Amino acid sequence: MTISGDLLIGGVAVRGAAKEFKGVNAATGASLEPSFASATTDDVAKAAALAWEAFPVYRETSLEQRAAFLEAIAEAIIEIGDELIVRAMEETGLPRGRLEGERGRTVGQLRLFAKEVRDGAFQELRFDPADPERKPAPKPDLRLRNLAVGPVAVFGASNFPLAFSVAGGDTASALAAGCPVVVKGHSAHPGTSELVGKAVQKAVAASGLPAGTFALLFDAGFEVGQALVASDHIRAVGFTGSRRGGTALMKIASERKQPIPVYAEMSSINPVILFPNALENRGEAIGKAFVSSLVLGAGQFCTNPGLILAIDGDGLSSFVASATAALAEAPAQTMLTGGICEAYRKGVAQLAAHGDVKQLATGKAGGAQEVSANLFETTATAFLAHTSLQEEVFGAAGLIVRCRDAAELARVVDALEGQLTVALHIDDADLPAAKALVPTLELLAGRVLVNGFGTGVEVSPAMVHGGPFPATSDGRTTSVGTLAIYRFLRPVSYQDFPQELLPAPLRKA
Amino acid sequence: MTISGDLLIGGVAVRGAAKEFKGVNAATGASLEPSFASATTDDVAKAAALAWEAFPVYRETSLEQRAAFLEAIAEAIIEIGDELIVRAMEETGLPRGRLEGERGRTVGQLRLFAKEVRDGAFQELRFDPADPERKPAPKPDLRLRNLAVGPVAVFGASNFPLAFSVAGGDTASALAAGCPVVVKGHSAHPGTSELVGKAVQKAVAASGLPAGTFALLFDAGFEVGQALVASDHIRAVGFTGSRRGGTALMKIASERKQPIPVYAEMSSINPVILFPNALENRGEAIGKAFVSSLVLGAGQFCTNPGLILAIDGDGLSSFVASATAALAEAPAQTMLTGGICEAYRKGVAQLAAHGDVKQLATGKAGGAQEVSANLFETTATAFLAHTSLQEEVFGAAGLIVRCRDAAELARVVDALEGQLTVALHIDDADLPAAKALVPTLELLAGRVLVNGFGTGVEVSPAMVHGGPFPATSDGRTTSVGTLAIYRFLRPVSYQDFPQELLPAPLRKA
Repeated sequence: MTISGDLLIGGVAVRGAAKEFKGVNAATGASLEPSFASATTDDVAKAAALAWEAFPVYRETSLEQRAAFLEAIAEAIIEIGDELIVRAMEETGLPRGRLEGERGRTVGQLRLFAKEVRDGAFQELRFDPADPERKPAPKPDLRLRNLAVGPVAVFGASNFPLAFSVAGGDTASALAAGCPVVVKGHSAHPGTSELVGKAVQKAVAASGLPAGTFALLFDAGFEVGQALVASDHIRAVGFTGSRRGGTALMKIASERKQPIPVYAEMSSINPVILFPNALENRGEAIGKAFVSSLVLGAGQFCTNPGLILAIDGDGLSSFVASATAALAEAPAQTMLTGGICEAYRKGVAQLAAHGDVKQLATGKAGGAQEVSANLFETTATAFLAHTSLQEEVFGAAGLIVRCRDAAELARVVDALEGQLTVALHIDDADLPAAKALVPTLELLAGRVLVNGFGTGVEVSPAMVHGGPFPATSDGRTTSVGTLAIYRFLRPVSYQDFPQELLPAPLRKA
Repeated sequence: MTISGDLLIGGVAVRGAAKEFKGVNAATGASLEPSFASATTDDVAKAAALAWEAFPVYRETSLEQRAAFLEAIAEAIIEIGDELIVRAMEETGLPRGRLEGERGRTVGQLRLFAKEVRDGAFQELRFDPADPERKPAPKPDLRLRNLAVGPVAVFGASNFPLAFSVAGGDTASALAAGCPVVVKGHSAHPGTSELVGKAVQKAVAASGLPAGTFALLFDAGFEVGQALVASDHIRAVGFTGSRRGGTALMKIASERKQPIPVYAEMSSINPVILFPNALENRGEAIGKAFVSSLVLGAGQFCTNPGLILAIDGDGLSSFVASATAALAEAPAQTMLTGGICEAYRKGVAQLAAHGDVKQLATGKAGGAQEVSANLFETTATAFLAHTSLQEEVFGAAGLIVRCRDAAELARVVDALEGQLTVALHIDDADLPAAKALVPTLELLAGRVLVNGFGTGVEVSPAMVHGGPFPATSDGRTTSVGTLAIYRFLRPVSYQDFPQELLPAPLRKA
C-alpha cells in the first residue's frame, strides 16, 4: 500500500492544506517519506459533519452488521501485511516482536468487541409493561435502551502505535457502541496511522456503511485536536497521553455550550508496595522482576512501575542491591520520539539533582537516540515533603521510597494521587497487613494486583484500565476491556411508543 | 417528634453556630417555629470526615444488611405519621393528597432500591479465570466489581420535599450503592427535612451502622453546599435545582484537586410536539389535557410542559382555543416559596412584555402568596431569533410556538437545548412524520413519550429522568429509577488476589 500523507475524510483521501510534516525514524532521527499534510479547521468541520450525518444510520445498524464491520477492520489490518510492522518499527523504534504482538492485541480487541456487540447486553434493554388498571394513575409502557452518544474524537497515543491508536481500544469501543469516529492521528507514527486508517476506510466501504463513519486527520500541532473537541458534531472524546494534554482537552470540553465527556488516560506512577515478609523471603527475586518490568518497552507503558514503597530493613536492602545490579546491566533503548527522549532526560536530571534523592544506578549508555534506565531512592519524609517526586517521569525511571514503619508507609499511600494500578508483593505472613491496606488501595487505583507488576493489561471483561484523577479524567470507566463500550452510551427511555415508532431493539411485547 | 432546628451529625443533634433562619408558611408568609441554625464550615468538615470514616465499613455491609437498612428508613418515615404531612403542607403550600402520594413514592423508592441491592446485579461482578499455560504469557486471574465512589453530598430540592429531598432518590440510590450521605437540607422545608433526617438517623442506629453514614446540614445561604462539594471527603454530588445553582456546583467540583462527578438535574422546558392529524382530530381535547398538566402542582415539576411546538392550521387553532379557555379557568395556586413566586412573576412579566410574544390567557387571580397560570404564543421565527424564549420559567407558564411547516418545526427542534422529556402527540396518520423526528428527539432528551405529558415520572427500571446539558450536568445517567444507583459506583479490578484478600463478593472460584 502506498503511503500518501493524505487525510482520510468521507471515504476518500484528501490532501490537507495546513502545515506539512514527516514521520521520523526513531532510531536514527532521519525523516521518513512521504510528507504528511496537517488538516485545516475546515477539514475538521467536514469530517465532524460527515460523522454527524453518518450517526443516525450507523447507530441503528444491526448488531450483526456492526460486529461484522469490526471483524472486517481486523481482517483489513492483517491484510496490510508486513508493511505495517516495518513502518511502525521505523516510526517508533519498537522491536518487531513487540509490534507483532501489539497487532495481535489490536485485532483481538476488535474481535472481542464484535463478540460483545453480538451479545447485545450493552444495549441494556429494559421493559416495564403498562398497567392501565393501576390506581391512582395508569402505569405507562416504558422501554429503555442504551443509545450511542454521538461521533467520538479519538486521539492516537504515541506509545501504542496500533493498540491505542487509529483502530485501538477507544476506536473499537466507540464503533462497537454505535458511534462514528474521527481520529486525530499521532504525529509520531503518521505512516502507521495512515495504513491502519485505510484499512478501516476499506472496511467501512465493504460493509456498506456511510463514508462519514470514520475519518483520520493529521496535525503537526494542536489546533486540529482542539477544534475537534470543540466541534458541536463531536459528543465524546477518547484520549491517551500526557496530563497536560488531557487536562487541556477536559477544559475545552467543559467550556462548550453543551459540555461532553472526555475519557483521558493521562498519568500514573503505578506504586508497588513491598511487604516485609515478601522482601525477607524473596527480596532479591522481586528486585530482578521489578527491573524487568521497569525497562520493558523503554518504560513507555502507562502502567510502568515507577514507584516502590517499602519498609526499611534487611529485606529491602537485598531488594535494592538486586534491583541496582540488574538495572546497571539494562541496555540502552530507543524511545518513541525525540520529544519523549528529551522529557525523560530532563525528568531524570531533576531527580538526580534533587537534594533528597539518591541515584542508585544507571543502565548502560547507548547512541544519541537512546536512553539509559535509571533507579533512585528517597525517604518517605522527603517524598511527603516534595509533591514533585510524585510526578510521572515517562520512561524507565524508578524511585524507591524507604519508609520507617507501616504507619509511615500508610501516610505515603494516603498522599498519592489517583493511579491506574497498585501492586502488592506479599507472602502469607503479610496478609493481615495487606488486608488492612486494600480498602485504601481500591480507592486509589482502577486495578490492584498481587505479586506482579501492572505492565500486562489483559483485554478482557474483568479488566479496569482506569482510575481516579489524574490517572484518568473519569475514574468511573475503563479504556481497556469490554466495559469500555459503556463510555460511549447513554440511556434513553421510550414511553407509550406504538410498535412502529419504537427503535428496532425495543420492538417486542 | 419535636422539631429542634438542629443539625444531625454523627448520630446526634448538634446546634449550628452560623446564621439562624426559620421555615415559612408558604400560604401565609408567616414564620414557622422553631429557629434553624446554619452549619459552620467546621460542621461541614466534621460531617464529611465522619462520612469518610464510615465509608469503609458501610460500603462492605452485606447486601441484606444494606437492603434492610433502606427498608428501615422507609419504615421510620411512615412512623413519623401525620406530623410529617402537616409540617410539609405548611412549609410548601402543597396539598395533603399530593404530599401523601409523595410520601408513598419516597418510601416506595427506598424499598425498590432495597430490592435492587438484594438482587446484587449492580455490583457487576465479573470473573476472568487464570490460565497459567497461556502463551506467550500466562493469563492472570482477574475479578471485577463495582465499588461505591465515596461519601455523597445530596442537595434537597425545593419542589419535592420528600421524594427529592433528605431521603429522596439521590439519597436512596447513593446509600444503595454503599455511599454514606451528607444532605444539605433545602431551607424551604427545614422542618420536613429534620423530621425525615431523624428517621434516617434512627434507622442508621437501629441497623448498627457507623453514625457517619448519614448527616443533615442546614444553611440559610450557599456556603455549606459550596464547602461540602469542595471537601476532600466528598466524592460525588446529587443536586436538583436551578441551572445557576447546578453549574456553580459543577464548577467547584471540576476545580478540586481531584475533580468529582456532579449529578445536577437543572433545567428543562419539556417540549410537546403536536402533529397535524392529532391536532385535526383531537386538538380540543389535547388543549385541555395540556393545561391540566401545565398547572399541576403550580407547574413546579422538572417535567412541566413549558413549550408547545405545532404547525399552523385549523387543528392548532382549536387546540389554542381550548387551552386558552381552560387556562383562564385555572385557579390561582400557592408556590413553594416567596423567591420562587417572585422569579415566576418576573419570568411571566418578561414574556408578556416581549414584542414577539402574545399573551393568550391568564388564570384566575388569587391572594398575595398565590400566582396565576399563564399561556403565551409566539412564532418559530421569533423563537429562533431570541434564545431567551428557551429559558425555563419555573411554574405554570406555557409558550406555544407556531411553525409554518414541518421544516420550520424541525429547525426549532434542532435549536433546542437538552431536555428531560419530549412528548409527541400523534394519530396513526402522523406516524411517518413522527418516525422521521424520533432520531433527533432521542438525542435531545432522556425520555421521549407519545400522547401524554412528562409530568408523571415512574420510579422503575426503565425510567430515565435525565438528559443532555442543561437538563442535567451528565446526560449519561438518570436520577429516578433503579439505574440511578450506577451514578455512585466505579469499577475496580482485582488481579491474582489470594482468596482471603479478596472483597467478600468476589470470593469464589
